[in-house]
Amino acid sequence: MTFSSAITEVNVDLGNKSYPIYIGENILPDLGKYLKKPQMGLATGTKIMVVTNPLVYDLYGRTVMDSLAEAGFTPIPGEVPDGEEYKTLDSAEHLYDVAFDNGLDRKSVVLALGGGVIGDLAGFVAATYMRGVTFIQVPTTLLAQVDSSVGGKVAVNHPRGKNIIGAFYQPKMVFTDIRTLHTLAQREFRAGMAEVVKYGVIWDCEFFDFLVNEHAGVMNLNTPEVTRVISTSCSIKARVVEQDETEQDVRAILNYGHTFGHAYEALTNYKKFVHGEAVAIGMISAAVAAVRLGMLSAGNLERIKNIIRLYGLPENFGALAPKEIIASMGHDKKAVGGNIKYILPEDIGRVKIVSGIDNDVLTGILSQQV
Amino acid sequence: MTFSSAITEVNVDLGNKSYPIYIGENILPDLGKYLKKPQMGLATGTKIMVVTNPLVYDLYGRTVMDSLAEAGFTPIPGEVPDGEEYKTLDSAEHLYDVAFDNGLDRKSVVLALGGGVIGDLAGFVAATYMRGVTFIQVPTTLLAQVDSSVGGKVAVNHPRGKNIIGAFYQPKMVFTDIRTLHTLAQREFRAGMAEVVKYGVIWDCEFFDFLVNEHAGVMNLNTPEVTRVISTSCSIKARVVEQDETEQDVRAILNYGHTFGHAYEALTNYKKFVHGEAVAIGMISAAVAAVRLGMLSAGNLERIKNIIRLYGLPENFGALAPKEIIASMGHDKKAVGGNIKYILPEDIGRVKIVSGIDNDVLTGILSQQV
Repeated sequence: MTFSSAITEVNVDLGNKSYPIYIGENILPDLGKYLKKPQMGLATGTKIMVVTNPLVYDLYGRTVMDSLAEAGFTPIPGEVPDGEEYKTLDSAEHLYDVAFDNGLDRKSVVLALGGGVIGDLAGFVAATYMRGVTFIQVPTTLLAQVDSSVGGKVAVNHPRGKNIIGAFYQPKMVFTDIRTLHTLAQREFRAGMAEVVKYGVIWDCEFFDFLVNEHAGVMNLNTPEVTRVISTSCSIKARVVEQDETEQDVRAILNYGHTFGHAYEALTNYKKFVHGEAVAIGMISAAVAAVRLGMLSAGNLERIKNIIRLYGLPENFGALAPKEIIASMGHDKKAVGGNIKYILPEDIGRVKIVSGIDNDVLTGILSQQV
Repeated sequence: MTFSSAITEVNVDLGNKSYPIYIGENILPDLGKYLKKPQMGLATGTKIMVVTNPLVYDLYGRTVMDSLAEAGFTPIPGEVPDGEEYKTLDSAEHLYDVAFDNGLDRKSVVLALGGGVIGDLAGFVAATYMRGVTFIQVPTTLLAQVDSSVGGKVAVNHPRGKNIIGAFYQPKMVFTDIRTLHTLAQREFRAGMAEVVKYGVIWDCEFFDFLVNEHAGVMNLNTPEVTRVISTSCSIKARVVEQDETEQDVRAILNYGHTFGHAYEALTNYKKFVHGEAVAIGMISAAVAAVRLGMLSAGNLERIKNIIRLYGLPENFGALAPKEIIASMGHDKKAVGGNIKYILPEDIGRVKIVSGIDNDVLTGILSQQV
């Protein structure tokens, strides 16, 4: 479906769970109009619970609610407090209450308006309310636009681990309004760029070079550059997820930087680093490991370090004991049978999955990068 | 796979989510041996959380745990209190804790040992722990053996409605040991027979006649009769679910007796009737409605009433106001856009989905059946 020439469409091809991602400027005021098109299959009057937080609601809530109402839908606000600490079963229960009290049924819609926390939480509610209702994502942060909008991972946190309770549940469609990036904090934008850089390293050398060469245009939020950043990232993630929806094998390459990164986040109680920052440091850790194992050239390690610096992301985790980092990685939910999988770059644009690295080697690597 | 000539196998054919149901005597002591077969794909040492309640654990817990341990698995007890009131997110959280504390990972197994409540709850945990782990069902009540073991509906209750929070998640296999019926309370067995009778009415006239003619053998728990009761019920449900896994259309026929039945349960606070009893009364309500609408002969209504009497099930809901019953049905999660779907018999072995019945007609029907 083409709305207008200004909208870029990326398709995620998952058989009968396929869905489109629409990327463009000023999508939000027209959201109702888009959803009303017959091919969307949403009847007039359909109840749409708009899951968001007060911060996002202040910026875009009215626009979205009005747009939906004008198009003949029945929008219902589903608000949760802002912050990862509210990505819990308690928040999900609150949203079940709102849904139930407002008479949402199996033909209703749950719409996520916000960043990754909102997307994960709303998606979990959509996946489990009445055994699954239509889920629409409207991501408003770069991280959500390039990462959580593709792949159907939805979850809430457990007191003892992030994303422990969740499902694979695909949205019916995703709408990305790049204008929302203008209100995004600089730190959050840079953190989102860590995931974007990741796609270059694991899959696409040309895209990596584009990110280096067009750094100014990207940081300036120029429309062509930002559109390419988001659409290429979504395309790469889509190609990976299409091969392996439920992460049995190849999808693991998306965890490049994350195995180490999750440990850095956890050991600093999710306070020192935002997710993308920890991933940036983790990408360097993995690249250092790759060099140590003779898989990657020192020159390519430098290129990875340089692009992370270029986007103002941190390179070091600071004062953490290698022993603790290794123990923390063993608790990651991706560790199977205690065996940790590492995603290590072989070149810019190509990674390899390596099962297990000797503890002494790991300690050596981690002692360096403080 | 054939274990022995004494085991009847029913296959649920859902593409890459297909699974077998094994029905036989004395399966529990050999459970570990069955699960160890290479085609099961479970590695030695695999952690298996056995979800059960104290009542079932006393009867079969030791047998199952020992059998799993002897086969080289690592069984972990996951106990919740007995009763529908514990089919909650709180119980699920308790089981997530047990799973996490015992180091269950993505290759681990959640095994449900018990009736429908245990199956639904354990299934929900299996569907959502780390975004889904292997789920094995060992149903120990007739209702669970003929109903919840087929179709992948898993759920917990919400304070304002049953099964409001759930998913469609198929087990990897089901083991039904018919010996467990010898320890099942008579009332529970009869209630399970309500669902069995349902399969006859909606799908299979010959099976209906078998249930009438072989009533004594069934109630006496004779092996051939009980095996046919369970395997035919599972086969019918499998054929329906195969056509419509996520209940978009034809699967709705399985709700015969349930639209009315849920209202009778809800309006008596789930205290007066067990589920199957409410379904039995509901099947009569739907049959009375079908006669009133000229769809069913009076003779067939009598046959339905007779079989329900034969299995010692109640025929009337007692003192409930028709107005309240109608309002309660409108809140059922199967009601879409306020429109209630009724499953009405046209003959023994054939039903039709009817959208909406006039309130006056409904009131008339319900005023009769008190």
